[in-house]
Amino acid sequence: MTEKDQTISCAIPNESSNHSSKKPAEIKADGSFNRQTNRFTTPFGNNPDELPVAAGRFRLLWSDACPWAHRSVIVRKILGLEYAISLGKVSPMRPRIERVDWEFSLDEHGVDPVLGVQYVSEVYKNADPDYTGRPTVPVMVDLETKKAVNNDYFKLTNYFETVWAPFHKENAPDLYPSDLRAEIDALNEVIFHDVNNGVYKCGFARSQEAYEQAYDTLFARLDELEERLSKSRFLFGDFITDSDVRLYTTLVRFDAAYYSAFRTNRNLIREFTNLWEYARDLYQTVGFGETTDFDAIKRHYHLSITIDPGKGEVNILPKGPDTSLWHTEHNREELNNKKEKFLLKG
Amino acid sequence: MTEKDQTISCAIPNESSNHSSKKPAEIKADGSFNRQTNRFTTPFGNNPDELPVAAGRFRLLWSDACPWAHRSVIVRKILGLEYAISLGKVSPMRPRIERVDWEFSLDEHGVDPVLGVQYVSEVYKNADPDYTGRPTVPVMVDLETKKAVNNDYFKLTNYFETVWAPFHKENAPDLYPSDLRAEIDALNEVIFHDVNNGVYKCGFARSQEAYEQAYDTLFARLDELEERLSKSRFLFGDFITDSDVRLYTTLVRFDAAYYSAFRTNRNLIREFTNLWEYARDLYQTVGFGETTDFDAIKRHYHLSITIDPGKGEVNILPKGPDTSLWHTEHNREELNNKKEKFLLKG
Repeated sequence: MTEKDQTISCAIPNESSNHSSKKPAEIKADGSFNRQTNRFTTPFGNNPDELPVAAGRFRLLWSDACPWAHRSVIVRKILGLEYAISLGKVSPMRPRIERVDWEFSLDEHGVDPVLGVQYVSEVYKNADPDYTGRPTVPVMVDLETKKAVNNDYFKLTNYFETVWAPFHKENAPDLYPSDLRAEIDALNEVIFHDVNNGVYKCGFARSQEAYEQAYDTLFARLDELEERLSKSRFLFGDFITDSDVRLYTTLVRFDAAYYSAFRTNRNLIREFTNLWEYARDLYQTVGFGETTDFDAIKRHYHLSITIDPGKGEVNILPKGPDTSLWHTEHNREELNNKKEKFLLKG
Repeated sequence: MTEKDQTISCAIPNESSNHSSKKPAEIKADGSFNRQTNRFTTPFGNNPDELPVAAGRFRLLWSDACPWAHRSVIVRKILGLEYAISLGKVSPMRPRIERVDWEFSLDEHGVDPVLGVQYVSEVYKNADPDYTGRPTVPVMVDLETKKAVNNDYFKLTNYFETVWAPFHKENAPDLYPSDLRAEIDALNEVIFHDVNNGVYKCGFARSQEAYEQAYDTLFARLDELEERLSKSRFLFGDFITDSDVRLYTTLVRFDAAYYSAFRTNRNLIREFTNLWEYARDLYQTVGFGETTDFDAIKRHYHLSITIDPGKGEVNILPKGPDTSLWHTEHNREELNNKKEKFLLKG
């Protein structure tokens, strides 16, 4: 099974298709979590049947809370695509309505100022009136039609890194170098299954066995990455790639959210030597820390996302952890073997 | 307010007195947690109006899960009182019945083999048919009458340490030395309010403000104890006292339960240098580790105790943390200034 086969976005298991059943549609018979596939996967490109690469034409909808959306916003920032692709942000707090949705409640009058919509589901319905899946972020919306045109978070950063190159800023780093793509793709698969989605498999499991299997896989993989990062500053050497962005979005949410809310409690990330320094190294790099909102992350996972249906009844946000630690020195530069390929530090 | 004014036992906030109200009886208007007072507080002693000190006469009821009961079981073991006072153990899992109770479901036929009761509430009702509070552990039961006679967990260890001395084992340590009692009592008050009950104030708070106040007080006190324990092996020097027992029962539950279940998530205990070594030192001492059951603790706090009413619906137990770490070396002996007063090591 490849990542493509079950691409995803920020999720609570979908129950909308079957309200009478107790078991959410994305939970398998053995209690394990199985994400819905993405609906809108037409690629960006220069062929007639592809989505056009055009500045000012699309709006990227995201939430601070969502790791799948966060990766696309980090890459957009690193590459300087913020002038070509505008950004609409939904609240980390799920609306209290019957269906699963995202809401523009952070905006004045509660609507996105460009699209004029209150819920993300509206752009999905514009594209497909019969759409019954969860409306997810990230999603690219065509401003001419107000339709969702691509919610394929798996490939979205790769589109930004390749076909969107004409709109990159000067001296933008190459996050997806041609000679490394096969290796990056392979590592991305692993990071997806065991880490990015691995924490969700822990949190959304509905059987002890499915949970423990996901937990063991997650921490075995983190141990392996810990070892890998003892030898090089980033996953592929002295420079940041698309894989680092993907790993970061889970690491940065781990201690503040997953450890307690998803029961991924073997270790905190700050208890790993290399993963913790690596994560801080990225956090302190242009595009990462500035797009990371710990308060939004905490509110989403502790108060809004609901693996425990009763949890919303006591609206108390955990005070810890101390996120100022993310600003402490990391000394990862010492691992650089050669002149840094990309000078990203702000 | 002294500890005596609001003595307590293992609790979920009492709702039994008012089922129609959403707010539990032990939650104050400002959302803070306020424990019920104890009902049975007649002291043990040698006066006619006191409970007699008599071997074989009383049964101590406890749960592995409960820190308030645990302290009395540790002291009973350290002093060798297990031959004078028998022990009945209830399940860490609350029974699924309407009222808050503790159940002898670990025993054959689901009843205590000595008392023949299924629920702890029965010995409370034997003593007072009109008893409406929570039935709590620890509780001392008179075997002649099967009545609860003392549930004053605050003083119970002190009775064991003083008037029960005729039944101590040979060379039992003095956990409550006369010349230190005033100091021990004063520290016990602080440990009670800010640490033992402090974690419950975090977990049971029903307002963000009450929670954050309890959280700040808890960690300020832990920071202070961390500093104190950098200078001496135990709280009062080179020997264990009643205060160490009280602090231990919260420390040993912290990482496995409170950190996530009660949102006490500034730091894990294993992230403190001295508190963590100190806790392991005690754990590896006779009476402590052998009475500590991490599985029972985890099941109670994550699956049974219900600050989140919906939580029981997904019965998944967090796999972490790695409790084998409690067996690792601690090197606290180096802090001993003089010959150890008590050689408790097994």
